Amino acid sequence: MDPVGATMRELLRVTPGRPVDLASIDPRSTPGLPAAEVTGEHRKEWARAQVELVGAELGRQQEMLFADAKARQAGGPAAVDGGASGTAAGSRAGAGAGHRLLMVLQAMDCGGKDGTVKRVAGAMNPLGLHIRSFGPPTDEELRHDFLWRIRRALPPPGYVGVFNRSHYEDVLVARVESLVPQPVWQARYDEINAFERELADDGVALVKVMLHISHAEQGERLLERLTDPRKHWKYNPSDIDARARWDDYQAAYAEALRRCATDAAPWYVVPADRKWYRDWAVAHLLRETFDTLHLGYPPAGFDVRHERERLLGSEGTTKVNGR
Amino acid sequence: MDPVGATMRELLRVTPGRPVDLASIDPRSTPGLPAAEVTGEHRKEWARAQVELVGAELGRQQEMLFADAKARQAGGPAAVDGGASGTAAGSRAGAGAGHRLLMVLQAMDCGGKDGTVKRVAGAMNPLGLHIRSFGPPTDEELRHDFLWRIRRALPPPGYVGVFNRSHYEDVLVARVESLVPQPVWQARYDEINAFERELADDGVALVKVMLHISHAEQGERLLERLTDPRKHWKYNPSDIDARARWDDYQAAYAEALRRCATDAAPWYVVPADRKWYRDWAVAHLLRETFDTLHLGYPPAGFDVRHERERLLGSEGTTKVNGR
Repeated sequence: MDPVGATMRELLRVTPGRPVDLASIDPRSTPGLPAAEVTGEHRKEWARAQVELVGAELGRQQEMLFADAKARQAGGPAAVDGGASGTAAGSRAGAGAGHRLLMVLQAMDCGGKDGTVKRVAGAMNPLGLHIRSFGPPTDEELRHDFLWRIRRALPPPGYVGVFNRSHYEDVLVARVESLVPQPVWQARYDEINAFERELADDGVALVKVMLHISHAEQGERLLERLTDPRKHWKYNPSDIDARARWDDYQAAYAEALRRCATDAAPWYVVPADRKWYRDWAVAHLLRETFDTLHLGYPPAGFDVRHERERLLGSEGTTKVNGR
Repeated sequence: MDPVGATMRELLRVTPGRPVDLASIDPRSTPGLPAAEVTGEHRKEWARAQVELVGAELGRQQEMLFADAKARQAGGPAAVDGGASGTAAGSRAGAGAGHRLLMVLQAMDCGGKDGTVKRVAGAMNPLGLHIRSFGPPTDEELRHDFLWRIRRALPPPGYVGVFNRSHYEDVLVARVESLVPQPVWQARYDEINAFERELADDGVALVKVMLHISHAEQGERLLERLTDPRKHWKYNPSDIDARARWDDYQAAYAEALRRCATDAAPWYVVPADRKWYRDWAVAHLLRETFDTLHLGYPPAGFDVRHERERLLGSEGTTKVNGR
């Protein structure tokens, strides 16, 4: 069942230029959830089943994205007109080599990035996924501009990219932990906007998602990692240090959202204390973003009738359809 | 339900050094399938459900592989002893940085490589997959040794790699289409064996799978691609040219299997005319290969009690468990 009233892109979108008050967004809320499910007894099961359904559609869209890029690269006719329609990413003139979709996932520790990738991206064909995780920069990466490693990790045309953390760490942890001087991180907001504008112009449909969890929920999840031996490996003692600076991180997020939510590269805040809602919402955000691309299967770049004759006339293919 | 009698690794494995007669392996056969399912009315549905179940176990194994590599990289205790046990890849001394699993998929056109990745690898967490497809080499790749691009595409420790085509193309298409002189491709069998021996010694558990389809089935599938407009993009007129050299390709496969099936890097031939059997068999091959690694979750690399105290004692975490 689709979200009620507005689209999820409308409901969860950060308004460009408007201050963001994260404290006013309840991490346990469920915007867009059909009324019957808000208090439904089986809403978890319902949401999981919906994610499966939407996931199948995501897989179909992903295949068309891939097919379209392949046809363009072969020089054949493409299914999507790069410059005709007037809607969002679908209208970018720069999609000559084919569109790409790129989801940027950001969250506090335990915010559910890995789980979202598993559940939502996992519904698509792994052959067409381009997932990259960004940890602390290596020595080599530190010798370059902060966007250097990001550019190298972009999905090729036809692929669905997922950034598990991203260049936004360079205005989040870099700011809160003073890893670089203030003038350096201050300049990055504009640099990020210019970079993302460039990507959008090049046919990249950006979906930037902040998974918004509460301080209490983070505590619960950290405790679980300390309690279940199968989860110890996910825990890092430095997580507690970052937790102690919760308010600083929230402020850094709010600033990043305010300054880098643009029409070309929108930010969405997804309430994420409830995992089933989180997955449901992200799946819909992706599906709605695919819709803006107006994808279809490309027409054949060869003479179909002639090829059928070649196949059916070729030696040994009398077996075809005759077994 | 598990395969009957022997393991799938035993049933489908090519015996090192023994000649391979592909014509004697029926692509519609279903080795290892429980008797009740061989002629069962709902065997397709049964097999799909089994792939889901085995897939869940693959996901668990994949997580342990990932966790173990992470613990080793952090310098903490690992769950798997790199040199103690005497079984297959689990015993390699070189797994100091953690094990890797690498499935190499080869098949004739329409053999089902993409479908296998989608259905079997798709059961795992895409975050821990490292999938690489190899097309015709680029100009840059041609300036290097044939293994250059392969080495660059290897999965890092902790990841499950899938090669969609591989270095075997360099003794298949390169041989049949005479892309290089005979002495060059002739030397490659030994070079491949040395390379794969090196990988195995470095902790890579190799699973090399040939998806074995019949000439008739390929004809059916090509016809489908020419009939269904949603599949035109998968068709390439050169597919018919390769089809005309079917026997040459089969001979090249047989030679590659005979010369490169080793204990360190086994080859498996999976009858693949029936997609549901193919997926079921490959899922089991992967699960059994994981079993040889004897994976477990690594113990904590920190003082669990101390961390719990830090978490529960830290400011604001009175909320934990108290909401």
